[in-house]
Amino acid sequence: MARRFSPDESVAQRAALPQWRHDARRDAIARQFVFDDFVEAFGFMAQLALVAERMNHHPEWSNVYNRVDIVLTTHDAGGLTPLDIELARQADEIHRRLTA
Amino acid sequence: MARRFSPDESVAQRAALPQWRHDARRDAIARQFVFDDFVEAFGFMAQLALVAERMNHHPEWSNVYNRVDIVLTTHDAGGLTPLDIELARQADEIHRRLTA
Amino acid sequence: MARRFSPDESVAQRAALPQWRHDARRDAIARQFVFDDFVEAFGFMAQLALVAERMNHHPEWSNVYNRVDIVLTTHDAGGLTPLDIELARQADEIHRRLTA
Amino acid sequence: MARRFSPDESVAQRAALPQWRHDARRDAIARQFVFDDFVEAFGFMAQLALVAERMNHHPEWSNVYNRVDIVLTTHDAGGLTPLDIELARQADEIHRRLTA
Repeated sequence: MARRFSPDESVAQRAALPQWRHDARRDAIARQFVFDDFVEAFGFMAQLALVAERMNHHPEWSNVYNRVDIVLTTHDAGGLTPLDIELARQADEIHRRLTA
Repeated sequence: MARRFSPDESVAQRAALPQWRHDARRDAIARQFVFDDFVEAFGFMAQLALVAERMNHHPEWSNVYNRVDIVLTTHDAGGLTPLDIELARQADEIHRRLTA
Repeated sequence: MARRFSPDESVAQRAALPQWRHDARRDAIARQFVFDDFVEAFGFMAQLALVAERMNHHPEWSNVYNRVDIVLTTHDAGGLTPLDIELARQADEIHRRLTA
Repeated sequence: MARRFSPDESVAQRAALPQWRHDARRDAIARQFVFDDFVEAFGFMAQLALVAERMNHHPEWSNVYNRVDIVLTTHDAGGLTPLDIELARQADEIHRRLTA
C-alpha cells in the first residue's frame, strides 16, 4: 500500500506541481483544467480514466462543459502518497499535449 | 431556446423522475448513480457524454470510483426545461440497462 | 439526406484533405492516424465519437494499440457527401491538436 | 511474458468461449458484438479500453455504428495466451451486462 508523505516530503513533492493547490484539511491536491469545449474536456477525461485504471488509483473529479476539476488524495493512507503525485503529473501532461 | 417550466409544469414533469431530487434554490434536479466499479461508471459516463453532445445539453457531474452524481438545469433559461427532463430520462435508461 | 458529390465536386472536396486517400470502388476516403500510445489513440476516438454522434454520421474505424484507421462514406447516398468531408476535417483537427 | 498455449491447451481454453471463432492461421480468436446503437457500442468500447489498459493487453478491434468486431492474439508470443482468454472473458461479461 502507498505510504502517506511526511509533512516535509509533501512540501517537496508538491513543489513540482505548481498548478495544484493543497487542501491541508483533507491533505489533498486540486486543480482545474480548462478546455475549448466539452469534446476536448471529455477526451481528456477518457485519457486520464485509462491512466487511473492502469494505476488502480482513481480521481475525485467533476466536469461542467469545458472545465474539469480534479481532487487527488489516497483514502487508504489518509492523505497524499506517490500515487497522487504520479496521477497529477500524468493529468498535467495529458492537458499540456491536448492544449499545446 | 428551451423555455423554463412553470411551477406546475415542473411538478408534473418531475413526477416521472422519482429518483431525482429537486433543488428548489437552483431549480435543478440531481441524482446519484452507483455502479459495480470504476469501469462500469466510466462506461455510463461515456454513453451519457455522447447523448449530451448530441443534445447540445451537458450535465454538471462528478465521479468518485463507482459513483456518478449528476445535476441538471438549463443555465440559459434559469431553471428546468424539457432538455433536463430528456437528459435525466436518458441517464436513467442507460443506468437501468447497465445494471439490469 | 446528404447528397452524393458529383465526380468533379468530389475531386474538389478531396483536394482539401491531402492525407486522405480515395477508394474509388467504394467512393470512400481513408486515413491512418498514429499516436504515442493506446491512451492517446483512445482519447482521439472518444473525441471523434462525440463529434460523430452530434453529426449523426459515424465512421468505420479500427484500432490496434496506437493506430486508428478511419474509412468514411455515406451509405445512404452510395458515396461521398459533405458529411464525410466534415467528419474528416474534424478528425484531422482533433489529431493535429492532440499531437501538436 | 505470457506463454503461448500448446495446441491441446488452446482447445481446452477456447471451449469456454463458445461465441469466439478460432483463426488457425493467425492463432487468434474473434467475435462480433452487436448493440442497440452507436452510443451503447461506444460505451462497451470505453469499458473494454479501461480493462485492456489495466491488463496492458490491447485488442485489434473495429466498429461500424452498432457493431464491434474484436480479434485477440498475443503478438509477442506468436499466438493465443492466457491474456487473450482473460480479455475475451471480460468482453463477454461487459457485453452480457450491457445487453441483459
